[in-house]
Parts: sequence; structure tokens; C-alpha cells
Amino acid sequence: MSLASSLTTHVNSLAISDVPLKPRTPAPKPNPVSVGAWSDAVDAYAGPRLSKRIIDVPDSHVTAEKLDAIFRTTYDGESNPGGLINLGIAENSLLTQEYLEYYSRVLKDALTPGDLTYGNQSSGSSRLHTAIADLWNENFSPLTPVKPDDIVTGPGATSVLDQLVAVFLDPGDAILIAAPHYNGFNVNMVARSRSTIVSVPVPNEEAFSPTSLDYFETAIKEYAAKGVTTRAVMLCSPQNPYGRTYDKETLLAYALFAEKHDLHLISDELYALSVYDNPNMPDAPPFISMLALDIEKETGKPFDSRRLHVVYSFSKDFGVNGFRVAAVISQHNPLVLRALLHTAFLMKVSSPADALLSYLLNDKPTFRKMVALNQARLADSAAHVRDWFEKRGFKPFQSNAGHFMMVDGRDVFHFKNFEEERAFAHKCIDAGVVVGVGQSYHYAQPGWLRVTFSVHRPVLDLALQRLDEALKSLKN
Amino acid sequence: MSLASSLTTHVNSLAISDVPLKPRTPAPKPNPVSVGAWSDAVDAYAGPRLSKRIIDVPDSHVTAEKLDAIFRTTYDGESNPGGLINLGIAENSLLTQEYLEYYSRVLKDALTPGDLTYGNQSSGSSRLHTAIADLWNENFSPLTPVKPDDIVTGPGATSVLDQLVAVFLDPGDAILIAAPHYNGFNVNMVARSRSTIVSVPVPNEEAFSPTSLDYFETAIKEYAAKGVTTRAVMLCSPQNPYGRTYDKETLLAYALFAEKHDLHLISDELYALSVYDNPNMPDAPPFISMLALDIEKETGKPFDSRRLHVVYSFSKDFGVNGFRVAAVISQHNPLVLRALLHTAFLMKVSSPADALLSYLLNDKPTFRKMVALNQARLADSAAHVRDWFEKRGFKPFQSNAGHFMMVDGRDVFHFKNFEEERAFAHKCIDAGVVVGVGQSYHYAQPGWLRVTFSVHRPVLDLALQRLDEALKSLKN
Repeated sequence: MSLASSLTTHVNSLAISDVPLKPRTPAPKPNPVSVGAWSDAVDAYAGPRLSKRIIDVPDSHVTAEKLDAIFRTTYDGESNPGGLINLGIAENSLLTQEYLEYYSRVLKDALTPGDLTYGNQSSGSSRLHTAIADLWNENFSPLTPVKPDDIVTGPGATSVLDQLVAVFLDPGDAILIAAPHYNGFNVNMVARSRSTIVSVPVPNEEAFSPTSLDYFETAIKEYAAKGVTTRAVMLCSPQNPYGRTYDKETLLAYALFAEKHDLHLISDELYALSVYDNPNMPDAPPFISMLALDIEKETGKPFDSRRLHVVYSFSKDFGVNGFRVAAVISQHNPLVLRALLHTAFLMKVSSPADALLSYLLNDKPTFRKMVALNQARLADSAAHVRDWFEKRGFKPFQSNAGHFMMVDGRDVFHFKNFEEERAFAHKCIDAGVVVGVGQSYHYAQPGWLRVTFSVHRPVLDLALQRLDEALKSLKN
Repeated sequence: MSLASSLTTHVNSLAISDVPLKPRTPAPKPNPVSVGAWSDAVDAYAGPRLSKRIIDVPDSHVTAEKLDAIFRTTYDGESNPGGLINLGIAENSLLTQEYLEYYSRVLKDALTPGDLTYGNQSSGSSRLHTAIADLWNENFSPLTPVKPDDIVTGPGATSVLDQLVAVFLDPGDAILIAAPHYNGFNVNMVARSRSTIVSVPVPNEEAFSPTSLDYFETAIKEYAAKGVTTRAVMLCSPQNPYGRTYDKETLLAYALFAEKHDLHLISDELYALSVYDNPNMPDAPPFISMLALDIEKETGKPFDSRRLHVVYSFSKDFGVNGFRVAAVISQHNPLVLRALLHTAFLMKVSSPADALLSYLLNDKPTFRKMVALNQARLADSAAHVRDWFEKRGFKPFQSNAGHFMMVDGRDVFHFKNFEEERAFAHKCIDAGVVVGVGQSYHYAQPGWLRVTFSVHRPVLDLALQRLDEALKSLKN
């Protein structure tokens, strides 16, 4: 494939002049079925009865509807240039042109007659599971080599987590997650499985320290006192929304916490290959998979490895959110794999995506080039966005992984409450850009933003111009 | 595209000499995690606790595990020539070469930058929903034109039905289906939603008559007496496993039955475009979508159209089971669409499949040619298989739609019970071929087979040779 000669050269097929500098300022366009409150729609409904479980919808439905409304107004250079540019979502358009060219070219070699059938497993193809095992073994040094049958795949981490938590939690049971955290968990682990997400606020300065688990100790007791049983703890490594890798000591603290309370430990490692250089973090730890740790040896304490399950997705590291391919890797718990097998066919990976990603993983030179190119562009784009915010008085929380960074805007905004933060989010939408405000990630104080920077540069710069408009309107 | 010049000319890229006539006779190769009984595995498990809902698995898990074992040993001309040829599953390999060539060629035009993102809706793309609406409006004469927002898509009818029944049924509630019926319903509508599938045995001679609903009247009362509430009725039109279209009178009888008992009516129309000529059925009704019927006008009785929901999938009519693209079309019930929207992101269609199928639907000349080619090959292949069974004393149940036919082997087998029928199924597996035996479809008497004929001819003939071996071994 014809990769750009320099790793840091950006694709400029879409020139800055092609994008409207004075955008229309569209309001999110909701699906016509989701106008007004759900409870009002239910009260007005006189048709044949719907199930109680659907009528008693969890609060997460509001997030699901909002997400759909934003998708429906999303900026597209060709079809919707006046749409909202979404810096509040983890999409990576730094490699779009390269991947479109690559996938279009290789499909004829990648797609087999078997891909038009149900394939050779209820879960994704054995070809894909083998390629994922190789990916893990060749890049993340697992303590025990990953085997293809350690893996169950599904259409995105969203689906995989939905099924996985149902294996551990009965409705109402709790899973603990350090806050701030990815807001999608409140949909994907609640909407069907009806789990209780316990967001555990951890101060910034302890978020990447073993002491973060002290807050979990408090939370688990607090929920137990309310009669809620905690069954699992989730680790996002690298962390979302901070965009940072964990050191070994903190990872081990998670493992010991899970062991102490007999919990399942889900390690969400979606950004494993999206680690990049930040000159302000010369001593940043590399990414370490939980599967790479010899926990008993490192800690001198027992650890039941049946409780450890890794979730991985191609969406982030390979910029293919739309492909919907993710995996659970559980190396020591065949009963969990068997439970997932019972419903694997309900979340079967689509074969063209299965074929294309397997092909890429097996095409090692291209795989390595694309990963390196992605990391270089992430570093470049992150530096660009850090600089932009610093010039405006924000304090970026230093990051070295993922598609986004948190920026501390407390000295700029002086928000007195979350209501004011929400008002700013609406001003951004009026200006044609979406940014994640801290409260969406269960942040304890107002004034923080999560900003996605893994955006094709001309579009990123347009988004930042729109954000400037929103900031100016705040001063007026 | 370079379609074969004659519609009935079969692709012979795989010559008969390429396939092993003396197959190895492999036993199904189970996933290593699913060896032995689930209850034994649970008893032996000493790891961190799994949820009660997962431990108390429905009986359907046995079917799910068996399906996976069969997939793992499936015949593949290149990678597994000694594998099982599966005539017990609805896969269509009559157009494999044409579709592989087509999709490989058009991906570069079909796939857009937006396909690498989450896209422009929580459900499948607006491009796909628009193409499905057009498909319906241009081919199936809906009473009210289908709009893109009447549609929710998901990764296969399996996933779509799982979510749809959860909207209508609380755990334990019943859905009625005429038996024999597709055995996958017992997995996809039970495994997660925990619905009760009520298989209503209807004699052959009434299966396509309005009197079939009399059996439903009995069943609904019987289950009500047991304290089970029925919330929905399912119609498979064209019918699976009979492979036959319904006349208008029977469709209307389903509608009136649903109205009378205030049930949701799910019309599974997966084989809508797979209707073919059978010279023995000169008066076979054409396929009629439930959406095409003016039920109130036709019957002179009220009908609440909020209860009507159609399920469609591309798997069958387009021979792409692996793509995982299906749709619910609900034209008059925004609350149902809204409920599905809350979990649509958990079953998002994969973008390469979304892009390829949208492209095909919009490429009208190719679409029409492929549908016609498929129907011609189905007719040819069905005639071939009817002839084969008739020569051996079986009585094929005349069919005009779908990928399979039921054949009455009672005069050949003289099975005294289902145990003997099951023993024959195992003999078939020993010979390297899978056929569906009647009991898998909840057939009331032993001695019937469901045989898939939509198989590339050289492989089909090899499968029939293997079946002959199984029949001979029965006589010995």
C-alpha cells in the first residue's frame, strides 16, 4: 500500500477550504420516535401491551436517545458539512484514507466462500480468533500464550460487555468503576443486563496510584450496606477519559482488590496499541496487559486467575468503530467461555469485517506500519490540541494513550455548578461542535472537558474554531 | 458484472473431481469448553461466582452447543474437505462466486469515511435503512409506504428477534408458533429474553389453511390454564421448514387471531425473494407481505396495526448468512421502535456489510439479475432434490420458497419412535452429512427430513452420495 512517506505527514485530501467556516448551527435531530419523555409516550400509548421490563426502562435510555440524536446530525465533509463535529466521542479519523484504500484493495483476497455462510464457529471465525491470539502473543507478552479458544468475539465492546456482565451479575448487582469513566458503560452494561454501575470518584492525583483502590474499599462497603452485592470490578487500561497508561503497581492493586473481595476483574484494554509519546511525560509507563502480569509472583499473594477477563476491540486502535469487532479473552475460566457460547450466536461478528481485520492482522508489515503511523499521528495531534488549550488558559491533564485528553478549564470557566457546565455544552452545540463535559464521565467537579484529538486535521481545526466561538459567547 | 449467460447454468468452478468421494467421517468437534453436561461443569466449578441467570441456563443451551460443534466440523472445499456437509441448515451457496466477485469489486465505491466511524444513527446507517425501505416499497407493495425511520436493523434475525421479543414478553411469557418450525427460535428467543416458545402442532394438510389458527386457540387456552400469558404470535411467511408461501386467507386469519387475543404479530418474511417455480404447484400463491394487506378492508373487522411487526434478513435471499444484517419494520408503533432504539447500539450492524448490501440494493440492474438468478437456481436445485428423493421412495412435501423442503420418509424408514429417527441422524453424521430430522422442528411424527437444496451442485451431489451411504447402512 502507498502509505505517506513521512509518518507525521497528514492526509490532506480534504483541504481546509473545503469545510464551511461559518457552519449552520443545527440542533441535534432526534429520531422522530424519541421526541418527548419516555414516560409521557408510555402514558399516551394505547396499543398492545409491551413488557414490563421495557416499560421500566433504566435511566440510561436518555443517554442512548441523546447519542442517536447526535449521530443523526454528525458532520460529514460530503453529506453533512453543516453537521456537528463530535469531539465528545472516541472516533479516530487519522488513518481513514489509508484504511479505505487498503480494505477496498484486499477484500478480494480476504473474503472466502465460507464468509457467506455462518462460518466455522458460533462466535467469530477461527481465522479471526487465531489472528487475535497472535496479536496478543506477539505484542502484549501474556504470561500464558493466548489460544484461539480462549476468545469469544462479538459486534463491538458494547455487545461483548453486555453479555459478559450478564454472566457475572444478576439484575441489580454492582460493578465498580473508577470515575471519571467512559459514559457508555452506563448504557452497555445496564440497558439489557440491568447491572448497577457504581462510579467510584477518585481524585486526579490518585487516579493512577494503588491508593485509588482505597476508594473502592469504601464504595463496596457503602453498597453492601444498601443491600447491593458487588460482583465485579472494571479497570480501563489505558484509562478513558484520562488517556493514560497505568503502572504495574496500580494494576496489581486492582488484582488484589478483586481477589480480596472475590470479584471478577474485567480489564478493558481497548487502547492497548494507541499509546503515544508525550514529551511532558518522559517516564510514562508503557501499556501493560493484565494478562502479562505474574500476579502471584509479583505480590507474593494468591490470585485466582479464573476471575480475570480482558476485553479488546478493534474500534479504537484501528479506527474502525463501524466494523463492530471486539473480543473477550478469558484464559483460565472455561465455564465463563461456555456461558458466552450459549449466546454467542446472538452477537456474531459480521464476516466482511472479520475477514478484513484478520487479513490486516496477518499482513504483518502493513499492521506494523499502520500501528506506528497511528501512534505518530496521535502524538502529533495530541500536542496540537494541548497547545491550543494551553494558549487559552486551560490545563491539559497530561496523556499518553487513547483518542482524547481531559482539560482542566476551572480557571477559565469558573463554573459554580454542573448546570453552568451543561449550559456551556449547549453553547458548543449551537456553535456546531460537541465536547464531552466532565459530568458525562461522572466527574466530581464542574469545569473539565474531555476532548477527542484523533481527528483528521482540517476537521479538527474547524472544530476548534467552533469551540472558540462557544468560548467567546460565554464571555459575552 | 459477468453473470453466467444462462440463468440455469451452474457455476462449476469447483469440479466434482475436486471433492473427496470417500470422505473422512469426522465426529462433530466440540469447543473444548463445552464437553460434558453444563450441570456437571457447574458442579465442578470453584471459581468466582457466576450469575444465577447464567447458571440456570435454559434447555436451549444444548442446541447452541450442538450448533457450534457442527460449525466447527463443517465441510469446506479447501480447508476442510473431509468435514460435514450440512443439509440441515439454511445456507445458500448457489450464488457464492458471483457475490464474492461483486462485493470484492464494489467495496471501493461502497465504503465511505463514515463507515469507519459509528455512522449516522445508533442503528444501521440511514443509507441502509433507506435502501431497505426502497426494497420493500418497490417489491412488496406495502399498504403504506415504508419509511427509513420505520426500521431498526441488527446483526442477523437472531439478534433482532432476541431484542424484539424482549419488548413484548417478560420472562416466561409465551409466543405461539405453528410447528414444525425453525429450531433456532428456541435459542434466539429464549437464551437471553427467557421467553416461552409454544410450538403449536398443525397437521400438514392444514398448515397452509386458516383452520391452522384453530390449533392456536386451543394452545392459548391450554397455556393460560397453566398460568402462562401469551403476548405474541409468530408467522413464518414463507414457511420454514415447509418452504411454502401462504395464501391471503391464512395471513388474514393470523391477523384476526392476533387482534382477538390482543397479541403482537411478528411476521418473519426472511424468504420473501426466494420464491421459485415448482411445476407440481401451478397454483401456488405468490409471496404476500403482511404489510401489503388491507386487513380491515379485507376482513371487515377492526385491526390495530400497532401490533404488526415484520422481520427481514439479507441472509437468505442474498446468500449472506455471515454478513449479519437484518431488520425490524414496524410502521405504526413508534413506542416499539423507541424501545428498540434504547438497545440498538448493542446490536449495531457492521459497516462493511451495511455498505455492501446498500450498494447492491441501489444497483438495481444487478439486484434484479441476482434475484432472478437465485430463483432460477433454487427451482433447478429443488427439482433435482425432489427427483432424488422420489427415486428412493420418499414423498417430498411440495415447496415453492426457501432453501429446503420437507420430505416424508415414513414409508422408507418405518421409525417406531423419535429415538430411531435420532439414530438415523447420527448415521448421517457418520457418513459426513447433516440432515434436519423432523423432531428438530417439533414435528409430531418421526420419519420426516428437512433437506437444504440451495447448495452448489457438486457439493450437493456429494452430500446426497453420503446420504445414500447412511440410508444403506440403515438397511444393514
